[in-house]
Amino acid sequence: MNIDDLAARLRAFARERDWEQFHAPKNLVMALAVEAAELMEHFQWLTERQSAELSPAAKEQVAAELADVFIYTVRLADRLGVDLTTAVEAKIHVNAAKYPVEKSRGVAGKCTKPT
Amino acid sequence: MNIDDLAARLRAFARERDWEQFHAPKNLVMALAVEAAELMEHFQWLTERQSAELSPAAKEQVAAELADVFIYTVRLADRLGVDLTTAVEAKIHVNAAKYPVEKSRGVAGKCTKPT
Amino acid sequence: MNIDDLAARLRAFARERDWEQFHAPKNLVMALAVEAAELMEHFQWLTERQSAELSPAAKEQVAAELADVFIYTVRLADRLGVDLTTAVEAKIHVNAAKYPVEKSRGVAGKCTKPT
Amino acid sequence: MNIDDLAARLRAFARERDWEQFHAPKNLVMALAVEAAELMEHFQWLTERQSAELSPAAKEQVAAELADVFIYTVRLADRLGVDLTTAVEAKIHVNAAKYPVEKSRGVAGKCTKPT
Repeated sequence: MNIDDLAARLRAFARERDWEQFHAPKNLVMALAVEAAELMEHFQWLTERQSAELSPAAKEQVAAELADVFIYTVRLADRLGVDLTTAVEAKIHVNAAKYPVEKSRGVAGKCTKPT
Repeated sequence: MNIDDLAARLRAFARERDWEQFHAPKNLVMALAVEAAELMEHFQWLTERQSAELSPAAKEQVAAELADVFIYTVRLADRLGVDLTTAVEAKIHVNAAKYPVEKSRGVAGKCTKPT
Repeated sequence: MNIDDLAARLRAFARERDWEQFHAPKNLVMALAVEAAELMEHFQWLTERQSAELSPAAKEQVAAELADVFIYTVRLADRLGVDLTTAVEAKIHVNAAKYPVEKSRGVAGKCTKPT
Repeated sequence: MNIDDLAARLRAFARERDWEQFHAPKNLVMALAVEAAELMEHFQWLTERQSAELSPAAKEQVAAELADVFIYTVRLADRLGVDLTTAVEAKIHVNAAKYPVEKSRGVAGKCTKPT
């Protein structure tokens, strides 16, 4: 999958439907957060173990929600003029510096520490 | 950016830090939703117009949050064994059928209709 | 509405259905975030102005979602042993100190400043 | 805590700071969803058991986030003209009919069923 190609297809999809009027970044980020929550809803009553052992039917539903999140992320980045490849590389670099292997082993990232 | 390569790098990053114990899909989806909200926070008091005209400094912050969302989406899909390329293509197909151009022109997708 | 009475009713509702096993704070906070997103979905394609002029039908749907958010907030606080009245009073006190009237006039709280 | 009194205090707080211009329902619901996610962030790497055994320090932080969620819920309802007491009573009635005790025992509410 090429991200730039996908962004161009989503842009055309919106333009054909005259949806650009709705696609202000403010609105797209709301839609993205809503899709992330719809994805999350599938997991809220599952144990951690169950969440790693979805049935094929559940996995298919979850895949469709993941796609929604991915699509809105690419659409929003395109609308903002953010290059996702550059941003992701930069963030991985930041994370590697922030969480050095030796000091981070077995310690979850920024979070309320378990009691 | 190759999604499979990125997934492999993120997998290695987690493994090196012994973070796989934290990366149940249930936990990763929570982290994804949190990152989506952190991204959204940048836009909550902006008008739609302002949201499309971010300053370079704001755009840089937003790019970093977008990267977090992207990274967790790829990591979660990898952890679940979901192929994002397939899922995205399937969803675009579904959306094209659900929102035919003629009937969808100027009408926002699933939403409370404006009054 | 008395918050303590409501918390007790929600506790009994869960206990009668043997739902306490699902109501770990981790799970309840996911449910709360999901409900907040379902509420938000009603507003994502509306303009700010439209969001203040909901139709009676939309307002009724939104009221039901607001109730879900309220219910999970009270249930989660009860499950954690947090006294909401005390917490709310403390937060209002903090906010009053953080946003003094003179310096805060017309300036949105913590946010990416409009460009 | 009286909800109507709290709503009136929050209204005055916003008015004194000339914040009503920012408090369109669309913006308030974004802020509410952001606060729900900030609350959730405290729990994302905890096990269900750990989430029920917060340290006093963590509990204090979580209480402050719960207060933010509560405050925005009351503020948004007030801004929309929704009576929370009525909405909550109606929702409890709906839930009691939707989840009869006998059929709901030990079965989580709407969710992807565990596999």
